[in-house]
Amino acid sequence: MLFQVEMNIRIPPDADPEVAKRLGAEETALAQELQRQGVWRHIWRVVGKRANLSIFDVKDAEELHDILTRLPLFPYMEIRVTALCKHPASLAVLADP
Amino acid sequence: MLFQVEMNIRIPPDADPEVAKRLGAEETALAQELQRQGVWRHIWRVVGKRANLSIFDVKDAEELHDILTRLPLFPYMEIRVTALCKHPASLAVLADP
Amino acid sequence: MLFQVEMNIRIPPDADPEVAKRLGAEETALAQELQRQGVWRHIWRVVGKRANLSIFDVKDAEELHDILTRLPLFPYMEIRVTALCKHPASLAVLADP
Amino acid sequence: MLFQVEMNIRIPPDADPEVAKRLGAEETALAQELQRQGVWRHIWRVVGKRANLSIFDVKDAEELHDILTRLPLFPYMEIRVTALCKHPASLAVLADP
Amino acid sequence: MLFQVEMNIRIPPDADPEVAKRLGAEETALAQELQRQGVWRHIWRVVGKRANLSIFDVKDAEELHDILTRLPLFPYMEIRVTALCKHPASLAVLADP
Amino acid sequence: MLFQVEMNIRIPPDADPEVAKRLGAEETALAQELQRQGVWRHIWRVVGKRANLSIFDVKDAEELHDILTRLPLFPYMEIRVTALCKHPASLAVLADP
Amino acid sequence: MLFQVEMNIRIPPDADPEVAKRLGAEETALAQELQRQGVWRHIWRVVGKRANLSIFDVKDAEELHDILTRLPLFPYMEIRVTALCKHPASLAVLADP
Amino acid sequence: MLFQVEMNIRIPPDADPEVAKRLGAEETALAQELQRQGVWRHIWRVVGKRANLSIFDVKDAEELHDILTRLPLFPYMEIRVTALCKHPASLAVLADP
Amino acid sequence: MLFQVEMNIRIPPDADPEVAKRLGAEETALAQELQRQGVWRHIWRVVGKRANLSIFDVKDAEELHDILTRLPLFPYMEIRVTALCKHPASLAVLADP
Amino acid sequence: MLFQVEMNIRIPPDADPEVAKRLGAEETALAQELQRQGVWRHIWRVVGKRANLSIFDVKDAEELHDILTRLPLFPYMEIRVTALCKHPASLAVLADP
Repeated sequence: MLFQVEMNIRIPPDADPEVAKRLGAEETALAQELQRQGVWRHIWRVVGKRANLSIFDVKDAEELHDILTRLPLFPYMEIRVTALCKHPASLAVLADP
Repeated sequence: MLFQVEMNIRIPPDADPEVAKRLGAEETALAQELQRQGVWRHIWRVVGKRANLSIFDVKDAEELHDILTRLPLFPYMEIRVTALCKHPASLAVLADP
Repeated sequence: MLFQVEMNIRIPPDADPEVAKRLGAEETALAQELQRQGVWRHIWRVVGKRANLSIFDVKDAEELHDILTRLPLFPYMEIRVTALCKHPASLAVLADP
Repeated sequence: MLFQVEMNIRIPPDADPEVAKRLGAEETALAQELQRQGVWRHIWRVVGKRANLSIFDVKDAEELHDILTRLPLFPYMEIRVTALCKHPASLAVLADP
Repeated sequence: MLFQVEMNIRIPPDADPEVAKRLGAEETALAQELQRQGVWRHIWRVVGKRANLSIFDVKDAEELHDILTRLPLFPYMEIRVTALCKHPASLAVLADP
Repeated sequence: MLFQVEMNIRIPPDADPEVAKRLGAEETALAQELQRQGVWRHIWRVVGKRANLSIFDVKDAEELHDILTRLPLFPYMEIRVTALCKHPASLAVLADP
Repeated sequence: MLFQVEMNIRIPPDADPEVAKRLGAEETALAQELQRQGVWRHIWRVVGKRANLSIFDVKDAEELHDILTRLPLFPYMEIRVTALCKHPASLAVLADP
Repeated sequence: MLFQVEMNIRIPPDADPEVAKRLGAEETALAQELQRQGVWRHIWRVVGKRANLSIFDVKDAEELHDILTRLPLFPYMEIRVTALCKHPASLAVLADP
Repeated sequence: MLFQVEMNIRIPPDADPEVAKRLGAEETALAQELQRQGVWRHIWRVVGKRANLSIFDVKDAEELHDILTRLPLFPYMEIRVTALCKHPASLAVLADP
Repeated sequence: MLFQVEMNIRIPPDADPEVAKRLGAEETALAQELQRQGVWRHIWRVVGKRANLSIFDVKDAEELHDILTRLPLFPYMEIRVTALCKHPASLAVLADP
């Protein structure tokens, strides 16, 4: 199942820069692992914000929730989830999940 | 350049069903043509709404505006555009546009 | 999969009362059929509004979208969908879908 | 009487993790006790958020307020309450409270 | 049980003035009848708006919903309901319902 | 003159519990004194929130402002004031202030 | 008593221009009469909108409501009222009402 | 004086296309005349909307209001005005108005 | 030129009361000096808030910005500025600035 | 490509004034360098706020994101980006980028 997820990351300016850097590196490593697994299908940066727009392809909402709450930066995120389905005008309706 | 575009379509319930049907068919045909050209990269349906979330890959904002305003259902749409860029954690940073 | 769906129905005061009545009856019949099938799990009225809060249990987002757009009053509805998952404190985690 | 309650929990990232863990465990224990009593009728997790959507079945608004303010995580919650009533299309109108 | 109800009335300027006048008179008559019964406990006008702030004392949410939807101007109203309970600092906690 | 006042109280979770308790007790004492004087006409609790909906009957806006800013919890309150007047359908139009 | 009143006027583009013109003239005449009486103390135009920001000096909220609902353009207005009182830093505290 | 002005144009889909076309042509002619006079300093199209973001350089707010309300499409516009001043980091502080 | 300015002052409850008191006194002194100069034309208190609604009469937006940012409480303010112009129905159109 | 960027700067009142001053000076130096390069085309101050409205002319969204996130005050900014394109009524359509 496909979900669009918007993640806005708000690390306070007075956070420990070492901790912020380490969490960011762990976040990137996990995001790339999930991309390789085909679960985190797309990730784009929103211009001018520490935020991303992503598309996830998961078995169900449980799986998505488990993934999001395991993200190292989850405690600093404001997340908005939108359930998607196939669009009748999409050429990918047959081939794509 | 990549843009996320949300299109909400509001055709009033008392619209002529023939006209609405014809515009919908023309919209689908054009959407599929633009997908074949690689310009309308993704189109998903938002569950429970006559709305879509799409990703466009265009030369610049002029091209996107020209495409959107040519859509047969444009007069009935409420559109929100978000400029995207590559995310440093994306595996697609090298391969993808 | 579970979804919460809020449906706000806005029939303009000058609508044909016969048509509104017929659509309402068809809506009720379909809602009850879907409850019998176990798909429309709960439906509650929001006090003071022509609106409902519902829980749907469907295979995936496609099925939910198909159901919602087939509702006779869909053209008059403003719908908000929230994807749900099991709560770790729920006693229903094992028994309930 | 039925109420829908949305609870958004905002524990600041710099909170003492031991305290947060203990409050969470107490919250779960109380939530399960209230489910066993039939008062906290449903609890679902909202995907991607530390939040729940719940249905309470209480004698009146006093009882609901007493329950909510006794929750161990109440000081960290943003709560939205919606009074519900039976929906005329519900099959549960006769059997369900 | 006590509820605060805000009613905003939006009669379009081009409505038939005779119909609007008749509905207003019926609304007033019913409002006064419900005040006499002790159900519609308070009604105040919001300055500068065709709107009221009211307090209802009803058996439960069903009764409130039945009352509100029977109001002659209901089709023209935007209604917001807030469930109330006794305030611990209120002198009316013992005497008042 | 009548005003509806909504008071939302936001005491941060890390506030000194002794100070919060003392301010709460002083707030209650003053609220009851003002009720006895007939100035604070009604006070209701909003379900699920540390908030109240109140009706004040004061000489003018100066008096209301003086009262509100003297409340011990005023520094923690978010306040919304709505000026009210008599409603033509109110039975209290003659008897009530 | 002083009130700030914002009036946004929304006459639909397809309204009869003769009627709109006549109502506007009547509105101006009444506004000027109320200024001469010292009731409508200030009226300013909001740049780029058919809207005004005004200060009224009235006996109480009843009087303000009566005035506003008698305005010829009232059916086309969206009105927001804010109760004011004297500011302790104002030089007008003694001289001004 | 400089103002930023956002103009959103909402011509209903059922408007007479001849009238809409004529008003659009008159709007363009006037916009270009005002650009030549140096009053309408910049005009940009917002992508995906029938809207523009503009910078006006006028003597004062009266002049801006006169210009905006004379625009042929003014009855169909929703306008937002923001007063600007020179930014201390701007290289144009000396040369530019 | 006339501007309406809304100033909301948010001094955190844990601020040093001596500093807050001193800044408040300096603010009052400056506000009165600017009233004497005819620049700060009106200042009213919004009931129930530490906020004011003011009218400024300045040469241009630069002057207003300089004044506002020099206010001792500026770092604690949330400010909203609305450019005003003369209203055609105002009796002050000829005499007033 | 042209983008409008709104930057709202929120430095907490208790920030170290030396650090704030140094960051502000570095911000100004970089803003002026980018203006000289023709990238930061316009910068205006929003009256009454520590905020600016700017126009950037960049190769694409990547370049804009790189510039914005390199700004010394970026951690304190709330940024809103709007993609622009040429307006058909603009005299600059031919000459301007």
